[in-house]
Amino acid sequence: MTQEQLYQNILNKQSFLCVGLDPDPAKMPASLGGDLFAFNKAIIDATAQYAIAFKPNLAFYEVQGVKGYKAFEDTIAYIRHNYPDIFIIADAKRGDIGNTSRMYARSFFETLDVDALTIAPYMGEDSITPFLDYPGKWVIVLALTSNKGSRDFQFICDQQGTPLFEHVLNKTQQWADAGKMMYVVGATQGEMFKRIREIIPNHFLLVPGVGAQGGSLEEVARYGMNSQCGLIVNSSRGIIHASSDDNFAQVAAIKAQAMQQQMAALL
Amino acid sequence: MTQEQLYQNILNKQSFLCVGLDPDPAKMPASLGGDLFAFNKAIIDATAQYAIAFKPNLAFYEVQGVKGYKAFEDTIAYIRHNYPDIFIIADAKRGDIGNTSRMYARSFFETLDVDALTIAPYMGEDSITPFLDYPGKWVIVLALTSNKGSRDFQFICDQQGTPLFEHVLNKTQQWADAGKMMYVVGATQGEMFKRIREIIPNHFLLVPGVGAQGGSLEEVARYGMNSQCGLIVNSSRGIIHASSDDNFAQVAAIKAQAMQQQMAALL
Repeated sequence: MTQEQLYQNILNKQSFLCVGLDPDPAKMPASLGGDLFAFNKAIIDATAQYAIAFKPNLAFYEVQGVKGYKAFEDTIAYIRHNYPDIFIIADAKRGDIGNTSRMYARSFFETLDVDALTIAPYMGEDSITPFLDYPGKWVIVLALTSNKGSRDFQFICDQQGTPLFEHVLNKTQQWADAGKMMYVVGATQGEMFKRIREIIPNHFLLVPGVGAQGGSLEEVARYGMNSQCGLIVNSSRGIIHASSDDNFAQVAAIKAQAMQQQMAALL
Repeated sequence: MTQEQLYQNILNKQSFLCVGLDPDPAKMPASLGGDLFAFNKAIIDATAQYAIAFKPNLAFYEVQGVKGYKAFEDTIAYIRHNYPDIFIIADAKRGDIGNTSRMYARSFFETLDVDALTIAPYMGEDSITPFLDYPGKWVIVLALTSNKGSRDFQFICDQQGTPLFEHVLNKTQQWADAGKMMYVVGATQGEMFKRIREIIPNHFLLVPGVGAQGGSLEEVARYGMNSQCGLIVNSSRGIIHASSDDNFAQVAAIKAQAMQQQMAALL
């Protein structure tokens, strides 16, 4: 998917919502018997009209072993087949030596055929560039994450006072442009969006941390939006596990619609 | 496995070799038909007497989707059942917000039951600590990697001249001791081992980069070894793909034995 197509989808749906497909069996209705794919299908069908992206996080599938991995594959295939305009992000936070990153790139962009993959930048250029060889596919680099631990290393400043996350933004931009690369910036980092937009005015930002983690959608939009929206805001638990009863999909739809309406007002 | 047990295994086998199970079907004999588990079984049986650890890298399994993930699970179970003294490292380079890292910890330490998992430190404390709740299980944090891209971020120095990888060593030590945490330090970083041993004299180091990547075993041992060995040196391609003919397992055994003999001389 191109940057322009993504923007068109945002305009068409008046939404920049990404629904995080992180299903936790403990929060699912008992009637589903822990079936991740059945849960996801219901969530996808209920929320796809309000969202432009879905983002399954691998951790929630690997925990069930082969069965979970199959549910992950089935989820990707289900979205692809039924909602071809949806942008699919595998939230995997991969990154390894070049030889190995090439294998991961094949896993996600050939075997699974997702649109984008999240990447941890610690290992540098050759851990990221193998993912850039796929036309229409995207790399989403962790820049400034939404969690408390983001303070441990991402804000370490060099001798000129430049923090690590800015180094990540500056350096990775040399490897791909705004048509192939995005960045993770947590909604909980509200005051930092302004500075980040000075460094990367044109890139899309994938923004977790609205909802359960406490970030503010208005603040993110005020400081993070650009002329082509430039934001994909994710909500996982706040939508998919808003109800743990049999009405979970209807409640998810109500939550997703409420976010879509807030987003329409901000666009 | 405890640090003491690991050291005893090293003494017993006169080896600190880890065999990297990163099977690439393009380098396997055609007779195996790309069967990762069949390949691994032959490699494990041929090399287990010379090694104290095996390290499958998830990328090489995920690339085959569900079938590959099954081969990964089967490989872990096969080692567990047949070689109970082997230390099993899942090379997955995970790390996510706390809620998600807890799921990964369950995946690797409960569902799969490996001994150790590699972790990328970029997201900080709450991305790592959920893995520390499992008695006898280990976290192996990326400190200084073996690849060219390690220069991009890991050597960025703060205002006191302390590079990022030293921050990672200093800070993560506050979260667990040498009985639960190890560090990845690439063999290609030879001259840095001395400095690293000043910071973490007692921790085990997992050392990739000997062999195909060009690192020197002698240099690693000279600067990296401590009174309880303190080293687990990995070789992947240099052993498992030394031959792509039907004799691949015999050739792997010869390569592994040669490394074991070098290691015995260094111990």
